[in-house]
Amino acid sequence: MSQPRILITGGTGFAGSHLVEYLLEQGFSDTHVTSLPPQNPDEAQPAWLIPANQIHFVNLTESQAVAELIKNLQPTQIYHLAALSEVGSSFKIADKIIINNTLIQLHLLEAVRQFTPQARLLIVGSAQEYDIHKPIPEDGISENHPLGPANPYAVSKVTQDLLALSYHYSYKLDIVVARPFNHIGERQAPVFAIPSFAQQIVAVERGTQSEIKIGNLDAVRDFTDVKDVASAYALLMTKGISGETYNIGSGHGVSMKEILDRLLDLSTMAIKITTDPEKIRPHDAPVIVANSQKIQALGWKPQLPLETTLQRVIEYWRHS
Amino acid sequence: MSQPRILITGGTGFAGSHLVEYLLEQGFSDTHVTSLPPQNPDEAQPAWLIPANQIHFVNLTESQAVAELIKNLQPTQIYHLAALSEVGSSFKIADKIIINNTLIQLHLLEAVRQFTPQARLLIVGSAQEYDIHKPIPEDGISENHPLGPANPYAVSKVTQDLLALSYHYSYKLDIVVARPFNHIGERQAPVFAIPSFAQQIVAVERGTQSEIKIGNLDAVRDFTDVKDVASAYALLMTKGISGETYNIGSGHGVSMKEILDRLLDLSTMAIKITTDPEKIRPHDAPVIVANSQKIQALGWKPQLPLETTLQRVIEYWRHS
Repeated sequence: MSQPRILITGGTGFAGSHLVEYLLEQGFSDTHVTSLPPQNPDEAQPAWLIPANQIHFVNLTESQAVAELIKNLQPTQIYHLAALSEVGSSFKIADKIIINNTLIQLHLLEAVRQFTPQARLLIVGSAQEYDIHKPIPEDGISENHPLGPANPYAVSKVTQDLLALSYHYSYKLDIVVARPFNHIGERQAPVFAIPSFAQQIVAVERGTQSEIKIGNLDAVRDFTDVKDVASAYALLMTKGISGETYNIGSGHGVSMKEILDRLLDLSTMAIKITTDPEKIRPHDAPVIVANSQKIQALGWKPQLPLETTLQRVIEYWRHS
Repeated sequence: MSQPRILITGGTGFAGSHLVEYLLEQGFSDTHVTSLPPQNPDEAQPAWLIPANQIHFVNLTESQAVAELIKNLQPTQIYHLAALSEVGSSFKIADKIIINNTLIQLHLLEAVRQFTPQARLLIVGSAQEYDIHKPIPEDGISENHPLGPANPYAVSKVTQDLLALSYHYSYKLDIVVARPFNHIGERQAPVFAIPSFAQQIVAVERGTQSEIKIGNLDAVRDFTDVKDVASAYALLMTKGISGETYNIGSGHGVSMKEILDRLLDLSTMAIKITTDPEKIRPHDAPVIVANSQKIQALGWKPQLPLETTLQRVIEYWRHS
């Protein structure tokens, strides 16, 4: 049986690079990625696990470039992870985030419709699409929960997600939508809280920073190891039902305070903490925990305990 | 008690011009509109019911222009109706529709946040935001129905609607969302089915066309007179609960075939009908009928029977 030809947009990014690693481990060697030409060569390293001719430097906001890529490559499976994702600043660059994320979604859908209409697409949305101001059931946020994003980044994920659904409905494209909750691991950018904590702890250990600055610690989130998220994406690619949406999350909530405490325990230093008003978002949801029964029914569950993930994250920053 | 200072974006358009008429009838003389400089002077006539200095020619896709308008005008009530709305062609111009509708929404929200944070906004979404592939209850589509637009225009309305909600959640802006179902009346552009039928019937009556071309007649829709929709908007502006969404519709479905038959009955001529494949949309929902109990609980119901609306529509085209 011939291997699928796999394309991962944003394949040199955080989740994308872990997905590449996972697929290579599974023996899928015909795995291609798109990437913007790297501004910082270090950032793109994990993707260089694949041959250079499987890395396609494409600006996905350019429709002609996307069309040519899909036409020439003829992928049979597309994982669409590329997106601007700086949530914290998304009100400041709302137009850029929404337009960028909408255009790359639209160009990909149009190219697939024209050149590879049989390809299967996995579209990556976000838990932040859900309206956390509506009553949340005891067993967490399911896929049926009302949409009501609280920031422009999350609005852009709704737009991506529903635009894909409109192509499924109107042109029968074979599309599955994933809505991952928080995920963490090596190579996540320190605009996010946990890598920021880890990076700062290491800076204090090195004596280049005297204290660590934090935002709101009350928020409770559902954290999954990025490696478990990668395996969920691969499972949805083969077993997800076309036109359906699947949450990816552990179903367990942990406060940011607990995460910070665990990271601090991984250091031998006594570290001073101060609150930085810049890190407090205009709206921060108190509790966001997944109901992930739908994907669990397909056979997925997270394998990696939080403890080992946090250990890996801090080791990553110690070696960066 | 002083009058509200009212701003209607898209106030020279179809629903906008009827809303202007309605508000003037109610005695609200401090009513302003935005409009793109009219390409066809006839189109804008109804809005000239208000003094020229209350018509503001602004391209809402330009953030600075929107900021200056809101800063200088200081509206207390804003009806946001401006949008590109050619549904039939929205797959062909998907990027333009989504970017245009998102930018005008974003610029308005940002200007209000900065310069008139106490203003009340009515955001006009669409019934097309709802997912009609999910099971539809006997009593119609309520506001809790899952979102799942089937074309890029409808995706853009979800984006507008949820972007507004994100400003309500994050910045406490005073926002109510309306989701009107189909509405009809004078001055609706003939890219929509019913004015197209009426325009073509009149063309046959005049001998300038030999037959009328139609699309799918099986679709069942919920039609409300645009004048009733205008009164619903005004009611929501004063009585809608901030952060809430309200459907506007009659709750009754009528097939396009029945509408066409009624329009044909209003003509004395025998008219030949042919099907035009160009008028068939890639995806056309079979039945879209509103559950409008939520707005009816605020005291609204449609007043004008379909018969008199269709009579007015055909008379409008006879005098155009």
